[in-house]
Amino acid sequence: MIHDVVVVGGGVAGLTAAHRLLQADSTLSLVVLEAKDRVGGRTLTVPVEVGKGKVDKFDLGGQWVGSSQDHVLNMLEELGLRTYPQYTQGKKVMQLGDNKIRTYTSDIPSLASLTGLIQLQFFLWKVERMAARVPITDPYSSPYAAQLDGETVDTFMRKHMSCEASLQLIDVACKAAFGTDATRMSILFFLAYANAAGGVLKVLETKKDAAQESRVKGGTQQISELLVEKIGKEKVLLKHPVHDVKQMEDCVVVTTEEKKTFTAKRVILAVPPNMLINMKFDPCFPPYKQLICENLPIGHLTKFIVIYEKAFWKENGYSGEIVSNGGETEVAGVSRGPLSACFDATTNNGTPAIVGFIAGRQGVEWHNKTEMERKTAVIHSLALALGSEALDFVNYAEKIWADEPYTGGCPIMFGVPGTMYAFPHLRLPFDKLHFAGTETATVWTGFISGAIQSGERAAKEVLHNLQPGLVFEEDLLGTCYDPKSMPKDYKNIKEEKGLSIRHLFYLALVAAILAFAYSMYF
Amino acid sequence: MIHDVVVVGGGVAGLTAAHRLLQADSTLSLVVLEAKDRVGGRTLTVPVEVGKGKVDKFDLGGQWVGSSQDHVLNMLEELGLRTYPQYTQGKKVMQLGDNKIRTYTSDIPSLASLTGLIQLQFFLWKVERMAARVPITDPYSSPYAAQLDGETVDTFMRKHMSCEASLQLIDVACKAAFGTDATRMSILFFLAYANAAGGVLKVLETKKDAAQESRVKGGTQQISELLVEKIGKEKVLLKHPVHDVKQMEDCVVVTTEEKKTFTAKRVILAVPPNMLINMKFDPCFPPYKQLICENLPIGHLTKFIVIYEKAFWKENGYSGEIVSNGGETEVAGVSRGPLSACFDATTNNGTPAIVGFIAGRQGVEWHNKTEMERKTAVIHSLALALGSEALDFVNYAEKIWADEPYTGGCPIMFGVPGTMYAFPHLRLPFDKLHFAGTETATVWTGFISGAIQSGERAAKEVLHNLQPGLVFEEDLLGTCYDPKSMPKDYKNIKEEKGLSIRHLFYLALVAAILAFAYSMYF
Repeated sequence: MIHDVVVVGGGVAGLTAAHRLLQADSTLSLVVLEAKDRVGGRTLTVPVEVGKGKVDKFDLGGQWVGSSQDHVLNMLEELGLRTYPQYTQGKKVMQLGDNKIRTYTSDIPSLASLTGLIQLQFFLWKVERMAARVPITDPYSSPYAAQLDGETVDTFMRKHMSCEASLQLIDVACKAAFGTDATRMSILFFLAYANAAGGVLKVLETKKDAAQESRVKGGTQQISELLVEKIGKEKVLLKHPVHDVKQMEDCVVVTTEEKKTFTAKRVILAVPPNMLINMKFDPCFPPYKQLICENLPIGHLTKFIVIYEKAFWKENGYSGEIVSNGGETEVAGVSRGPLSACFDATTNNGTPAIVGFIAGRQGVEWHNKTEMERKTAVIHSLALALGSEALDFVNYAEKIWADEPYTGGCPIMFGVPGTMYAFPHLRLPFDKLHFAGTETATVWTGFISGAIQSGERAAKEVLHNLQPGLVFEEDLLGTCYDPKSMPKDYKNIKEEKGLSIRHLFYLALVAAILAFAYSMYF
Repeated sequence: MIHDVVVVGGGVAGLTAAHRLLQADSTLSLVVLEAKDRVGGRTLTVPVEVGKGKVDKFDLGGQWVGSSQDHVLNMLEELGLRTYPQYTQGKKVMQLGDNKIRTYTSDIPSLASLTGLIQLQFFLWKVERMAARVPITDPYSSPYAAQLDGETVDTFMRKHMSCEASLQLIDVACKAAFGTDATRMSILFFLAYANAAGGVLKVLETKKDAAQESRVKGGTQQISELLVEKIGKEKVLLKHPVHDVKQMEDCVVVTTEEKKTFTAKRVILAVPPNMLINMKFDPCFPPYKQLICENLPIGHLTKFIVIYEKAFWKENGYSGEIVSNGGETEVAGVSRGPLSACFDATTNNGTPAIVGFIAGRQGVEWHNKTEMERKTAVIHSLALALGSEALDFVNYAEKIWADEPYTGGCPIMFGVPGTMYAFPHLRLPFDKLHFAGTETATVWTGFISGAIQSGERAAKEVLHNLQPGLVFEEDLLGTCYDPKSMPKDYKNIKEEKGLSIRHLFYLALVAAILAFAYSMYF
């Protein structure tokens, strides 16, 4: 039989697309193919023993939502899921630059030097201004795009800051938000990504409107599980990894690794780009799409939860938030300690816990160690930051996302330098293939909310082809059928000209010499 | 039956490894599995119609060898292949910066501005000095490695040069040598790669000892074809793409996509890293190896040959060498014209021809066009550079390596910023798996010579395990059994400190103010 739609990928994006399609037309014949033995993709809620034989659920994948993330909030409401606020009261802990442990309560990070603070503030103002000019729909349409895309976040920030602590703060932010180091990411991608979230601080902070504002009662994987119930369990096939996708004259044939075939009029590929390049496509992807799929590496992030009997950090006036360069370590083969960022993870059932990340280069280095070595190092670091009570923990759970089959990393794919001119093509349909997944989102790209937005957009694209009567003009805004959302011709890119810091240096030098000569003369 | 060795990949590296193993012990049972329907990997020699019903052979893949490339020269001699010099007499053409066509005869490129030339010379001196300190065996063991690896070639050169023409010259060099733009490559990788070739200019030039010094009579693919004869045709199985590799207690099981299985004591994987990540490994790669395989993208390079009735460029005093930013173009959807670098390609049979590259971003953009559009643009550009006689060509042949199955690009995989700390792990064996391929070479990495060196190194590693008696101490130098060649612990990396250009700027500014104040005072 020929299905109307085959959706590849049973994560938040794919299941959202399937659900919206069936909402629009319940008669559509549709099937979702998921490679794993579970739905949810990069959301994963697991039961953890919390002592006294009790068990509570924790998110080892995406866990936060913010009040400016309309798409996920609407979905939560539709599914009857509730949120509760991220705990943020009290002292925060910072370990940067000189590796000393410092605490602070205001929004102003406690850096050792005032110049460091000033540099950081000016830098943040500058990137906020710049981010506002870089649309994620087509980053190359922004000023100086080509040159900015040729620069890493690391080199860019070193032009504006010299204080080691300030530099490390941005690097830790990249590690926690992208699972990568500042040395690997294109500053243009960073700006576009921040813009899609409404600003750089929105991505990093835990306060109102920011990305880490609230959590979902019972865990975020419920979004996918409840969507499966609405779609119909029989339509979602687990353990069906797709091996190849063949586009014919009037249909698409999708074949699994076990050689089961599914035929459909349209296919939605809701899998991360790093998994797309493992599938065989006939005909193969057009050059831009192939390039961008091959050049969006996934972050390396290990998430850990430490369960405690009581939230001693709260009692001692700490929020549980830690921002750290990892600190020094004696462990061989790793450059730093494991921590990047930690937060209070006490559940709505009241189970006290701390959640944290081992990310970027440290993520790779500590991935080489045993779970026991990681656990020991994490607990040791928590004790240094929050007090020796941290040593007396109830349970430790971790998830190394790099080991997760059919995902291969976390939290998202990020842009490396020099390839952003192809980025809009990640989202573009290819004949009868449509693309979803949070990397293809244009609002809150890389977040659960982005996954939902991308799924809804892909559903509209497909519906426009299968049931044009059901789609209104305004439904197509932001899809490939909206001329305004198409990438521009790249010939009109402005290259950065004008005074560089080195020109100013020569200028000042000349001024100095002249002034000196002048003073000698009289 | 259990083979002694299965070699995956019938390119120069894999076939060299197989040949050396059988030379050392002809009783070894060995099989080579090649995915394509031909051997040679990224070397490809094809017959091209050259008019009057005549046919001559041209290299559409790797074609040059240099007199300092011992490994390939020894192999050529062993196989009875001869070389002939690359034609370099006469005027060279340069189109950079202002897009004007300029000619020059000396080694000094004809840049519009003197300051551009001076900047370029100082830049080249600096990178030569720096390259000498960056060993490809472990780039991170060099000074300031972490910070240099966080920088692209583009940002690095913009710190030292401001002349658009000089900047474009280095960018064109990256395009022709790596198939990528300066905006995508780690400067640390660039330095390590240059060091492995004996210097930056060795990589770029056509003169003695350099990479483009000579060509192989009859084409470079003969190396692989002659190796097959020595190994034995029956031992080299074409159209056997490997799907998965399973390491057991005492053997390795290699399964093809058609589910044929081969069992061996040791396996040599002589396929490019971008193909390794498409295979399934059980157990999966260790973290560092997985990271570096996932983060070595392959260049995008289209090679073209234009056949002429007579070598009009020689008659007009041109060498045929063109270095170009592509120039302006009216074609929609491409940022520049197609050319990056061209050379005389007249064969030893006397067939006049020009060879050139459409590479990096232009390679991707022109990949989107039809062959007719590319051909028209190339011929048009050649006419502008070498004279209108270029319009009257006999034949045009091209090879888009990005479309080549089981290769996916050309000429090589390059290092993106921020991942070089894992680079040495590309070469390291993983239990019973050994790794060859020019990307794993330590001498002339990325060249045919490097492929041979890597194959010989892998053969020694395997022989050391299967027939220890046949391997002497000195044979193990540079292999994983040579402690000196192992990556260091990364904790001792020096971060760049000291005065930056901006500090000097502030310094000079203060000096200016003081001097001025002083002059006012008196």
